[in-house]
Amino acid sequence: MVSMNRRSLIRGSSLALAGAGIALGGGTAVRSATFPQQPGDAYGEWSAVTYLPLVSQKLYAENEKAVRSSPYASHLDADLSVPSEAAKAIQSGPLDSSRTLTPSAENLNVLIDPEYKTAEHGYAVLGDQMAYAQSHMFMPGVTTDMFKWWFTWHPIEKERYMLWFPQAHIDNSVEDPSRLANPSLSYEERLYGNPNRIQEWIGPSRLDAIIHFTDPSLLGFDGDKLRKLGFTASASGVCYATPAPDIPFTLMVHLARDTPAGLELFSRYWIGAHPDMARFRNAEKAPGMLRQIGFNAEVAEMTAYEMSVHDLTEFNHLARVLPALYRDFS
Amino acid sequence: MVSMNRRSLIRGSSLALAGAGIALGGGTAVRSATFPQQPGDAYGEWSAVTYLPLVSQKLYAENEKAVRSSPYASHLDADLSVPSEAAKAIQSGPLDSSRTLTPSAENLNVLIDPEYKTAEHGYAVLGDQMAYAQSHMFMPGVTTDMFKWWFTWHPIEKERYMLWFPQAHIDNSVEDPSRLANPSLSYEERLYGNPNRIQEWIGPSRLDAIIHFTDPSLLGFDGDKLRKLGFTASASGVCYATPAPDIPFTLMVHLARDTPAGLELFSRYWIGAHPDMARFRNAEKAPGMLRQIGFNAEVAEMTAYEMSVHDLTEFNHLARVLPALYRDFS
Repeated sequence: MVSMNRRSLIRGSSLALAGAGIALGGGTAVRSATFPQQPGDAYGEWSAVTYLPLVSQKLYAENEKAVRSSPYASHLDADLSVPSEAAKAIQSGPLDSSRTLTPSAENLNVLIDPEYKTAEHGYAVLGDQMAYAQSHMFMPGVTTDMFKWWFTWHPIEKERYMLWFPQAHIDNSVEDPSRLANPSLSYEERLYGNPNRIQEWIGPSRLDAIIHFTDPSLLGFDGDKLRKLGFTASASGVCYATPAPDIPFTLMVHLARDTPAGLELFSRYWIGAHPDMARFRNAEKAPGMLRQIGFNAEVAEMTAYEMSVHDLTEFNHLARVLPALYRDFS
Repeated sequence: MVSMNRRSLIRGSSLALAGAGIALGGGTAVRSATFPQQPGDAYGEWSAVTYLPLVSQKLYAENEKAVRSSPYASHLDADLSVPSEAAKAIQSGPLDSSRTLTPSAENLNVLIDPEYKTAEHGYAVLGDQMAYAQSHMFMPGVTTDMFKWWFTWHPIEKERYMLWFPQAHIDNSVEDPSRLANPSLSYEERLYGNPNRIQEWIGPSRLDAIIHFTDPSLLGFDGDKLRKLGFTASASGVCYATPAPDIPFTLMVHLARDTPAGLELFSRYWIGAHPDMARFRNAEKAPGMLRQIGFNAEVAEMTAYEMSVHDLTEFNHLARVLPALYRDFS
């Protein structure tokens, strides 16, 4: 991993962030035309991911060794691919601000409003210090039961996490693994309030963060509205950089529901600092921390695009591997 | 362009190189499954390019405006795609040194030896200061006559150069445009000894260089051997950084011949400094110049991968647009 850290440091935007241990920003993309088209797949053509940052090239060689000697060896799938149109949709610059949402509680409820229209995939910079990425996708053959199982199962071992995105996922762990694995508890009782530390490459930059998954109503969503709209699974929360674990710097939303076309997933990433994060304790410390590590509008833009590419890649790859993992290990 | 330069500067590897005006290294990739398969196309599946550096996203918006008001508007094609297997072939780290060639005159002749076997696409670092990229591809529907016409036609106007790779090509010019355009001269008389300044993004890094196209026998190739093997077109030469125009820092080879499957192209890029560049005047000044701008083995590795991705993208895109351009403008 040493060479990867050094490699990360030669990229400027990483430089600032890696220095504070929360490298963010800069490089990969996504399912090939040979991917078996599934019923309900309305995406059209798929493309193999055509660019893989050097750090991911090197990480894959290590991860392959680790997974090959694990019980999950037969589930390792290195073929990354994404819907071609989705990859192209994020290649024309940032979204216009009329199509983005700031991270206010009010906007979380706009996001799930059936009347609200925006781009399926996009990225933007909100203000000077916030990277923003959004996606809306379907995962054919995947259910919310599988999705919830995944979030209680994969953080137990890093080899499980690697299966999700073998070219980018380095390590993860959870504060209370026995609670996470306790089948007598509900999904929410297992995952919420059980911080999940993740280490991964977002493009060419290393992210070391702690995700505090929590009830979406504590983030600002209207719980009744979520239920009425059929959202039966959430993997949403606030993230903290490992070296600054008291300062919230990211609001992450993954809301899922079952549809005839498979699992429907709405994702949002608000990374950085913004006045609309004020409801989270210590949010007022984020602007200073981010300034200190050089996280400006330019770094935010790169982070936003890289996050968008990463999200597109990892959730399409999860759709590809999850049904068989669920069958074999749930 | 100012914002692009600044953007380039936030990336570390670019930082060093951009400082000296020869930014090299770091980010895009690849023809989609929707690309019309042509006769003789043995590549299998194509993928849309799934990652486009921010600088390329912004450049395309500018280039589109420029080309739309030029005589070539109908030839602007923004769809970048590459053979999926070729993109994947360069995602597993650098080539083993047994599969690469240093830039000696002897090795140029190994390269064209029918017995010599190596990877179709690959990149590597040679020594501490040289980025290396290689490719071997077919361009269905393209002939060496078209290829030679292209190299005497496109450097006349930047809008022509943009058509080649609208997301990466910024500007170009040639020392003596009237000689380049003189139909009473041969290809060689028009292009050789007529320096071509190019400005383009190689991944996220800006390259500003002067290409001295020349007779391949002056680079070290055995001219008789080239003729016997049917190589009727070459766009090869030595490149100099615009701010250090007396120091050779790149040997570039594009050798082409006609086959039933279309134009067959062998390309090699040796970028940096290497003892086997000694036959080029002032090559001994390259190591110091490169050290001064921070071009080390890590930057070289990134440059090599980015060059490989760029080459794969631009020559597949040229194959796509060249036949119609030749039909309409030759």
